[in-house]
Amino acid sequence: MSTNQAIILDDVQGSSDHRKIVIDRVGIRDLKYPITVKGKSGEVQASIGNFGMYVFLPAEKKGTHMSRFIEFLDGHERLISAESFSEYIPSMLQKLESDQGQIEIQFTYFLNKAAPVSKKNSLVDYEVSLTIESKNGIISQNLKVIVPVTSLCPCSKKISEYGAHNQRSHIIISVLIDLQAHPLHVEDLIQVAESSASCELYGILKRPDEKHVTERAYDNPKFAEDMIRDVANQLNRDDRILAYQLETENFESIHNHSAYAFIEVDKRD
Amino acid sequence: MSTNQAIILDDVQGSSDHRKIVIDRVGIRDLKYPITVKGKSGEVQASIGNFGMYVFLPAEKKGTHMSRFIEFLDGHERLISAESFSEYIPSMLQKLESDQGQIEIQFTYFLNKAAPVSKKNSLVDYEVSLTIESKNGIISQNLKVIVPVTSLCPCSKKISEYGAHNQRSHIIISVLIDLQAHPLHVEDLIQVAESSASCELYGILKRPDEKHVTERAYDNPKFAEDMIRDVANQLNRDDRILAYQLETENFESIHNHSAYAFIEVDKRD
Amino acid sequence: MSTNQAIILDDVQGSSDHRKIVIDRVGIRDLKYPITVKGKSGEVQASIGNFGMYVFLPAEKKGTHMSRFIEFLDGHERLISAESFSEYIPSMLQKLESDQGQIEIQFTYFLNKAAPVSKKNSLVDYEVSLTIESKNGIISQNLKVIVPVTSLCPCSKKISEYGAHNQRSHIIISVLIDLQAHPLHVEDLIQVAESSASCELYGILKRPDEKHVTERAYDNPKFAEDMIRDVANQLNRDDRILAYQLETENFESIHNHSAYAFIEVDKRD
Amino acid sequence: MSTNQAIILDDVQGSSDHRKIVIDRVGIRDLKYPITVKGKSGEVQASIGNFGMYVFLPAEKKGTHMSRFIEFLDGHERLISAESFSEYIPSMLQKLESDQGQIEIQFTYFLNKAAPVSKKNSLVDYEVSLTIESKNGIISQNLKVIVPVTSLCPCSKKISEYGAHNQRSHIIISVLIDLQAHPLHVEDLIQVAESSASCELYGILKRPDEKHVTERAYDNPKFAEDMIRDVANQLNRDDRILAYQLETENFESIHNHSAYAFIEVDKRD
Repeated sequence: MSTNQAIILDDVQGSSDHRKIVIDRVGIRDLKYPITVKGKSGEVQASIGNFGMYVFLPAEKKGTHMSRFIEFLDGHERLISAESFSEYIPSMLQKLESDQGQIEIQFTYFLNKAAPVSKKNSLVDYEVSLTIESKNGIISQNLKVIVPVTSLCPCSKKISEYGAHNQRSHIIISVLIDLQAHPLHVEDLIQVAESSASCELYGILKRPDEKHVTERAYDNPKFAEDMIRDVANQLNRDDRILAYQLETENFESIHNHSAYAFIEVDKRD
Repeated sequence: MSTNQAIILDDVQGSSDHRKIVIDRVGIRDLKYPITVKGKSGEVQASIGNFGMYVFLPAEKKGTHMSRFIEFLDGHERLISAESFSEYIPSMLQKLESDQGQIEIQFTYFLNKAAPVSKKNSLVDYEVSLTIESKNGIISQNLKVIVPVTSLCPCSKKISEYGAHNQRSHIIISVLIDLQAHPLHVEDLIQVAESSASCELYGILKRPDEKHVTERAYDNPKFAEDMIRDVANQLNRDDRILAYQLETENFESIHNHSAYAFIEVDKRD
Repeated sequence: MSTNQAIILDDVQGSSDHRKIVIDRVGIRDLKYPITVKGKSGEVQASIGNFGMYVFLPAEKKGTHMSRFIEFLDGHERLISAESFSEYIPSMLQKLESDQGQIEIQFTYFLNKAAPVSKKNSLVDYEVSLTIESKNGIISQNLKVIVPVTSLCPCSKKISEYGAHNQRSHIIISVLIDLQAHPLHVEDLIQVAESSASCELYGILKRPDEKHVTERAYDNPKFAEDMIRDVANQLNRDDRILAYQLETENFESIHNHSAYAFIEVDKRD
Repeated sequence: MSTNQAIILDDVQGSSDHRKIVIDRVGIRDLKYPITVKGKSGEVQASIGNFGMYVFLPAEKKGTHMSRFIEFLDGHERLISAESFSEYIPSMLQKLESDQGQIEIQFTYFLNKAAPVSKKNSLVDYEVSLTIESKNGIISQNLKVIVPVTSLCPCSKKISEYGAHNQRSHIIISVLIDLQAHPLHVEDLIQVAESSASCELYGILKRPDEKHVTERAYDNPKFAEDMIRDVANQLNRDDRILAYQLETENFESIHNHSAYAFIEVDKRD
């Protein structure tokens, strides 16, 4: 097609709207694109990002130009790091001709762990979400991670002659980061979560390792309530965190439902 | 076992805690239980509720008694209606010995619809969530529904010689209800959503019906932005609604990602 | 519109096709419709069925009439029982003018259980799938159930000074039923699965119950391999079952992946 | 711990079993590990594999050694290509001391596409599954891909004055590969699927592109039945394919359920 033809196709989205209703966020979501993630150590790993990208739409504008979000993404290197992520948003806003907007990325992140006794290496996977928002000229950044752990029930241990029910649990930490402070890495949040559980998970466990984690969990019983409080305690002392939301969910081995706890704190209040 | 034995089993959850951290919500989630739902017409339909039930936990208490949530649920009739739902929370709080708490129920709800021309009847299913919360002595109630609809792209229609891409979309309405006002039914929100789309969905469509909905959608093109504004317009005028969150998501037939819009309004501000 | 107009709308699906390719199954899927299920005791419970309904399409026919599946469903009572389910398929085939076809229904089914010590009642939910197929004049019927259970690791128990890792597991049984034999109920398969696990699950467990299930699981350690063999042993002896597929999946409490086993047996071979 | 201690920990899995029941497949599933995939052009892309790894367990052996699957995976380069994938299985079997086994990998794969008119580049994502099995000394390899496309309803177009309902659909192709033949790449299957739909999908579409795909779909109406037959026609002529299973599923824009078709062919019969 000729450039001429492009010019004469109506720009419906660019026309005006009469309903006098602003839209807080409009854009695309559930878009997969490859990314690379730079970890705390500086090492880079490849992953696949699930992107949501949105801008504010003023009342008088009929629509946004959805294709520009993809153009923006395709024109970028997509290297994600604790230090660089907030740099994305100004160029997206410029591309979309807006002064407010948000980028969310969900991706799988791996840590290489040594088993506790055999020291054999293997990977554990974590689901991470990063969000940056620019609103009223202020950029804010949120980091969320789902950390799978072992929980062992203190009540079951206490009342039983032997054994104690235990299960896989999720500790979900979502924090609003102080961008003026020292960088906060996803590894830092994972460390907080794993140190607050009955035991952390590993990809590989040889028999001496399995003995070790079994006994460690039994020595270290925790309710959903205990884990969430131990996480909160650590986050309360971390000056890089302005606000947080915590969840612990135990996929109970004795029930077909979950035990669940939730804490929300805004240190700025 | 004898009643004696029950008495001597330690109540670990009931012991005291020294971390000085309150837990906003603790309880159970992802519990399935049968329910009956009374609709706007007064007719009752059976469904299956996915329950989350939580209470506030003061800093000095180690844990909540999870089994009491199930006892509470099992002891109740579980008939859900716009008028009766908020009555659940006081008895749950009494059972759990707490003064703050929340109940969430997600369930599938059916409407019987006549096809537009043939008038043949069939059911359409909607995912509904109800939440009641009691906090600081005030009970608040939230109602959310995911309404599947057809959207047809105004830009595609305008620039193409013939045809226009269209697709299944979700209009998601979540409202905070004024409990002093006239009852608000899920049917009311579904009606708002379906009247704001390019066309509503049906279970059964005979050929004359299919012709009707094809032409209706083509006559009625809507962006994600248009649908969300048309919904907002109706909710703004409804005095039973104190605040709302709206989403529209188009599962684009020409892309492998979604177009998305979001509006949040609190009329009390 | 007048009846006349309906007559003149082309029947595109009914036209002929020249590609000379038969279609094994064509129809609708992921359709939700309310059902009632009659259990082993004769009691009836309400549920929501997720339906797939398909017919064979001969090479010379362009398409099937999808709307007739819904008409068929809407015209039926939808009471599902071990005895009656196979009666559905002849009337569907007649409605669709085909001589081969299949109906699949997935639904949630509840059992009321008494806790092992306190005898308190609560429900446990199971995901059930029923399939009937008519092919070459023969009707066959398949029943599948996902049974959530507790598994406790024999290796972990053996090598550890105290404790043993355990977790929620799924035992998935899918059987081809001998329709000439005594009826087989979903309760029968659930009983087989629960008796083959380290312990069964309950909705409610008071402290004496929790002590009981903790100790029962510890006394009864099982690998994924043990559970699947114990189930196979029982199914091998059941003459109502012509063939089966079994799966056990442990959502490991010490890993972020599952342990898994699979057995397939056709007794007719 | 000392090496001595490792030696004295019982090998429970290695002990003998008396139930006389073989297990067709036992191992691990839902394990995420990073992979690189070599495409048809020879270019390599990073992805994340979801692994299932299983071996046959003879009747007399109590269990398999789950940790060895991870050791195997961690010791490998994990570069996946049409040519190299079947080389994985012999070394896994050696590691697990078995003579039958299976490896499944699911991953997201990207193709870079130029928009039809503007020629702007963007990525489209596809879900791919690769399976290799070694049984009775024979290695077989299966390749499956889910291809998202546009389908436009021929009946709706024919009977309506203007417009035609269309939607996102999935064409799912699963083929058993002839390992003696010329290599078959996932790109080949994607090409078959996209050429059989009303239109293929793109990440980015500028207005002239959107006009193009809208009109292309309208010019090219297809039922689920048409798409599946057009795919079957192409696969029937491809000598690299020994057997196949096809599915087409339309996420109907006028209903809240899907239209679906299925074909299964074994050319070796």
